[in-house]
Amino acid sequence: MPLEALRWDLTPAGLHYLLIHYDIPAVDPATWRLAVGGSVGRELSLSLADLRARPSVTAAVTLECAGNGRAQLSPRPLSQPWLLEAVGTAEWTGTPLSGLLEEAGVEGSAVEVLFEALDRGVEGGEEQTYARSLPLAEALRDEMLLAYAMNGAPLPPQHGFPLRLVVPGWYGMASVKWLHRITVLDSPFEGYQQARGYRLRQTPSEEGEPVSRMLPRSLMVPPGIPDFATRERRLEPGVHPVRGRAWSGFGAVERVAVSADGGESWSDARLGRQVGRWAWRSWEWDWRVEEPGLYELCCRATDSAGSSQPLEPPWNLGGYANNEVQRVPVVVSGGPQGS
Amino acid sequence: MPLEALRWDLTPAGLHYLLIHYDIPAVDPATWRLAVGGSVGRELSLSLADLRARPSVTAAVTLECAGNGRAQLSPRPLSQPWLLEAVGTAEWTGTPLSGLLEEAGVEGSAVEVLFEALDRGVEGGEEQTYARSLPLAEALRDEMLLAYAMNGAPLPPQHGFPLRLVVPGWYGMASVKWLHRITVLDSPFEGYQQARGYRLRQTPSEEGEPVSRMLPRSLMVPPGIPDFATRERRLEPGVHPVRGRAWSGFGAVERVAVSADGGESWSDARLGRQVGRWAWRSWEWDWRVEEPGLYELCCRATDSAGSSQPLEPPWNLGGYANNEVQRVPVVVSGGPQGS
Repeated sequence: MPLEALRWDLTPAGLHYLLIHYDIPAVDPATWRLAVGGSVGRELSLSLADLRARPSVTAAVTLECAGNGRAQLSPRPLSQPWLLEAVGTAEWTGTPLSGLLEEAGVEGSAVEVLFEALDRGVEGGEEQTYARSLPLAEALRDEMLLAYAMNGAPLPPQHGFPLRLVVPGWYGMASVKWLHRITVLDSPFEGYQQARGYRLRQTPSEEGEPVSRMLPRSLMVPPGIPDFATRERRLEPGVHPVRGRAWSGFGAVERVAVSADGGESWSDARLGRQVGRWAWRSWEWDWRVEEPGLYELCCRATDSAGSSQPLEPPWNLGGYANNEVQRVPVVVSGGPQGS
Repeated sequence: MPLEALRWDLTPAGLHYLLIHYDIPAVDPATWRLAVGGSVGRELSLSLADLRARPSVTAAVTLECAGNGRAQLSPRPLSQPWLLEAVGTAEWTGTPLSGLLEEAGVEGSAVEVLFEALDRGVEGGEEQTYARSLPLAEALRDEMLLAYAMNGAPLPPQHGFPLRLVVPGWYGMASVKWLHRITVLDSPFEGYQQARGYRLRQTPSEEGEPVSRMLPRSLMVPPGIPDFATRERRLEPGVHPVRGRAWSGFGAVERVAVSADGGESWSDARLGRQVGRWAWRSWEWDWRVEEPGLYELCCRATDSAGSSQPLEPPWNLGGYANNEVQRVPVVVSGGPQGS
């Protein structure tokens, strides 16, 4: 079945061209090649079969969009209005980037590595293909993966078919999808998505700090059942497990604290398993609640670098990296006999 | 790996409990059973293995949320703000519902069949599990499927694991996910999702007409490249293919018309293949454009029942069944030399 049909007829995401930065490019895997060039001793050109024949690694990695939580900011920045759903963990399979760069032979003059994609659009008045660079030292990290499979199957179109970069620890914009060219650079990349997009600034005139690693964050699956319209949770007095996940791109998650009174008092959650160094970590806390009333559950992660989630959202023009403490209202009813 | 871990760690959708009606229920497939009862000669109880051992059918079926297009209405109804993305087509594999009802022996007094799910929440002040009924004649249609697989794999949690109903031709609310009980009824079901939800009404006091089959609709993948912020398309003069899909729950798609001037004039698109009677149909049209300027592409499907898409959105309180003609602004630049 041709890829076009696959994209349209057999993906649950359906007509998803609207949902992403630009369009999902239609790629013919038979003719697609990855080019490696720039300041290298030897240029490379690899087919998908060439990449699959190289040493392979499978790793569970959490990727979070830099705009996750944007819709909770006020005033709301203009861009995709993510609430808290723009994060996920998958098992990525691919070949290490470092091996490929070693084979190409990075010149001593190199400072960055540029990753160019096939998706094309206009942003800030500039026509462009999506492209992002990494400092050379980051690009040479062992964990950098050129991934051709996700959860044991070829990458779905919306996740970068046929090849994407996976940059563990960084917000998702670094993990370039639909990758087709890698270029070793002697000077910093100044393209739109690097120099203008993904910058933390308060006003358009600021240069701004670049967005990079994921700030510590925890999210819960709250107890009880939801009220459809308000998203409040409803439950009865008793002991209710509160479960969640936590992650940070700056260090291991060392603590998750949970509050049932909107952040007045905090208790430590039990930290659970983590399926990989760069995957989120599970946590659980038993909430004992006796009195009917309105409560606010909160969770807050602290990483080994000593950073915690802020109680107030860190506003910036692009709405990036909002890792404020999650707050979930809960209505505790009068017990099994009534509410 | 336990289902909980699967839900959390290995699904790209990540923390998706926020995105649906209620929560995705955690189901242990080893103990889960489907109950069939009510006005039948013989009650049934089936395990997942029992269902898989029955005659199986695989069919490509398009499912569209009744709220698809809600966010384009003004004033905007209070609910999930879908633009145009809440539609998709998958290959569903399962066992026909009719065979199971035949085996149970539907009594002569029966008028409806009720489908109860495992997801639980509060809506309109009522605590409930999600439940919807179908008229008996609909439930006995050959195409009704109890589906345990989607695109060749077990249902993902967010698509109803371990079992969902698939009701070809109807909006998605009828295709009950996380199904666990089927009850043959002697009188119409009056539960919230039937009597109050999914009704076309202008004011809260109206009883309203029930939402049922999908109205005719077409969507395009527009030509050119997108402007990130405005979602306008950009392209140069020339001939550009405009491709899309069209569907209707009332009859076959017989015509798709395309306009490049906002609906002043229309041309017929070529209708292409359809992977199944209840799957959307592909279409294509070559747009020849010579003059730079601002255009508006539109597409409009007509089905064999004689219905077409309206040029203005059909407003109702719930924001259901908005099948208005899709409109996409396109900026045609001055040619390869500039814009």
